[in-house]
Formats: sequence, structure tokens, C-alpha cells
Amino acid sequence: MDDHFLFYVAPDDIISNKVRFPEEEGRHIAKVLRKKSGDVIQVTDGLGHRMDVRLTLHDKKRVEGDIVATAVMPEDTERILAMGVIRQRDRLEFAIEKAVELGVTRIVLVHSDHAEKVSVKPSRVDKTIISAIKQSHRYRLPEWEERESFYEVLSEYRQNRRVITALAEEEGVRNMISENSPSLLLVGPEGGFSRAEIGHITAFGSQFIQLGKTRLRTETAVCALLSLLQCR
Amino acid sequence: MDDHFLFYVAPDDIISNKVRFPEEEGRHIAKVLRKKSGDVIQVTDGLGHRMDVRLTLHDKKRVEGDIVATAVMPEDTERILAMGVIRQRDRLEFAIEKAVELGVTRIVLVHSDHAEKVSVKPSRVDKTIISAIKQSHRYRLPEWEERESFYEVLSEYRQNRRVITALAEEEGVRNMISENSPSLLLVGPEGGFSRAEIGHITAFGSQFIQLGKTRLRTETAVCALLSLLQCR
Repeated sequence: MDDHFLFYVAPDDIISNKVRFPEEEGRHIAKVLRKKSGDVIQVTDGLGHRMDVRLTLHDKKRVEGDIVATAVMPEDTERILAMGVIRQRDRLEFAIEKAVELGVTRIVLVHSDHAEKVSVKPSRVDKTIISAIKQSHRYRLPEWEERESFYEVLSEYRQNRRVITALAEEEGVRNMISENSPSLLLVGPEGGFSRAEIGHITAFGSQFIQLGKTRLRTETAVCALLSLLQCR
Repeated sequence: MDDHFLFYVAPDDIISNKVRFPEEEGRHIAKVLRKKSGDVIQVTDGLGHRMDVRLTLHDKKRVEGDIVATAVMPEDTERILAMGVIRQRDRLEFAIEKAVELGVTRIVLVHSDHAEKVSVKPSRVDKTIISAIKQSHRYRLPEWEERESFYEVLSEYRQNRRVITALAEEEGVRNMISENSPSLLLVGPEGGFSRAEIGHITAFGSQFIQLGKTRLRTETAVCALLSLLQCR
């Protein structure tokens, strides 16, 4: 069996033990990877299942499969990332992709005080997240949403989670990250946090962490903070 | 004085205490940032100098300046990153940009055993590095080069440096990174290291470090490894 690739199929495309691959994925399986009827590939539904699927190729587009084995994969430690939105689309998508590779379980894009005005394209975010779980072999699809403020995020997600906020060197106090518990991670937009936001974040009992010695862009801070948590 | 922006001027464009900005930079200063004659900005030559420069705008393209103060900035701890080249240009440039933001002092792009065949465009790499030092306020321009193998890199740069190699979870042993000493960091290409390469790396006395629990792309491993070093 080829376990180099992991495929994603939305739960709606799985009916009892039958999988119907979307056209694009079918083409990829048949034409690019040259799979044949009878080959077994690994598939996830993004809900924690790893399935071995035996393929049936009807033509170069229509590919179906039978689930021959299913494993329930372990839960990820909950890590909610709330980040200021980034105006440049490639940087925003990069931040999302890296966050998923580095183990995030929910992404909140925050239209915060100093964030630039941006409208986020949901289909692009969905696509980026799906592509990243396939690439990094994760079996649970992180959810994402948009929020109007860090205050809203803190009110919603503070409870039962430790809060860790990334700050630039001049402002922060270095704290060690040692436990592996549910967490809410805050990363400001390019323009940083406003005074009011820092007030809320402090009032909600956040730890602060310094990331390095240089100024980091938002997407770099996302990578750095999640790397520290992943590599504790 | 506006210290939000740092400008870069090649040493050749500085003659005694006069700075001549390249046309594109001049336009940026004059048209985008709307600077005026007499304004003072911060400039680096990429050789460790931070200069306060008083501007003279001749027209919307030709901008010059007088150096009114110069500080010599502290040396960075030497960190040489040798990474397998990445075929996709945006991912390669992203890896380079993030490496510079996260404190690398030299980048070696390695055409290693499992790397895809790629021709690197030097002007793009130069541009990416310059843009990253400006953005992250670094004052020494990292150098870069291409090499044919990790063996060549190890032979050249091993001496007097600790070697740290990023490995995927299944292969590596976790080592703590604690000291801040000159180092040579190795990150494989998308296809990983070959057996022969692992042999050389081991023979040259490298430490190995596991980066997280999921499969990481090359550029993500670069971010993760450098973040660990920056945030020790």
C-alpha cells in the first residue's frame, strides 16, 4: 500500500463503506499518480479516521473506493490560534498552512484594532487547510472562523485554556512553555496589538512570550510560536 | 526621526558620507512615504552599520542623503543554514525570507541527493534577502551560495561549529538546544536525506533534532528549527 500520500474526502462523500472521490481528486489519483483498480490508498474524512480504501476506477475522472479498514487516530491537544488578519493573500495562506502543519486545531482570523481591512475568501481558506492536513498527514480538519476583536476571542475561548500571547522583544517577558494543555494562542497583526487589546489580554490572564531578537512578521510569529509548542 | 522603516543601500552607493539611493528606493522614499528634503531616515549598508541619513530630494526619482550619525551594531551569532533546494519558487523564497527574519547569517542551497532539479535565480534570492533584513531590522546582510552536496557543506563548514540536523519524528532523537554558539544547521529537501547523506552527517558528529509530531515541509522545518534557536 502507498502510504506516502494521504487523501481527503468530505464526510458527505462517504456512504456506509463506499467513498466517492471528487472529480479533481479522482483525476489526481488516476492521471497523476496512475493508480489502478484494486490499489489501496489512505484516506481521511478529517474527523479523525484513517481509512484504507481499495480503488475502483470507472474512467479518468470517476474514481470510487471501498473502505477495507478504519483506524481512529488519537485526538490532538487543543490549540486555538487567534491571529490578526494579514492583507497579503499569499502571506495569510502561508500562515494558515504552517499553522495546520504545526498542529493547530482551530484558527481564528481576527479583524483587530491595528489589522488592515481585509475580506477573507472562505473557499481559499478551506482549500489551504485541506491541502495542509493531506501534506502533513493529520486526520482531523481544523476549523476556522473570523472574529471582530481579540476581546471577543478571549471572552469565547478563555475558559479552561491557558492563554499565550506573542509579543515583540521590547514589550514581553520570556516565559517557558512546558505543559501540553489546551491553549489559546494570540498573535497580533502586522501593526501589533493596540493598547486596549493589551489591556484585555492582560486582564484575561495571558502569559506573554518573546519570539526571538528580531521583528517578526505575523506569519513568522505564528510559525515560531507553534514550533515552540510542538517541540517542547 | 522615522525609525519604523529601515532602508538598505549597497556599500557601492555610499561615498564618504554621501548616500545615493537606487532609483526604485528613491521613488519609494519620495512617492510612497512622501519624505521631504531634510527628513532623517535609518539606513543600513548590510555590513553592520546603522546610519541616520538626512535626505536631499532632487526630483521624484533622484534621492540622496548625508550620513549624520553611524552606529556599529553587534555581531550576530553565526548560524549557517544548509537546506535542500525547493522546486517551487514561492516556497523557496519563503524559506529564505523566514530564515533571514529568524536570524540566519549564511544560507546554503544544497542540490542534495533527493532534491528536485532546480535552477535558482540569483537576483530573486538577493532581493528576498535584502527585503527581509529591511523588514526585520537586521544590519548585516546574510550571504548565500549553492552547493552540490551536504558532504561538501559539512567538509567546508563543520570546523569549530556544532552541527544540528532536523529529522522527521520517526528517525530522530530529541536533543535540547541550549547554548548560543556558532552552528551549522542542516534541513533536508522535500524528499528527505539519502542514506549516504545520513551516513556523512552522522560521521561528521551532528546532533539530531526532532521537529514536532507531524510531517513538515522543508520551509516549515527551517522556520521551526530557527525558532527553537532564536527562542532558547
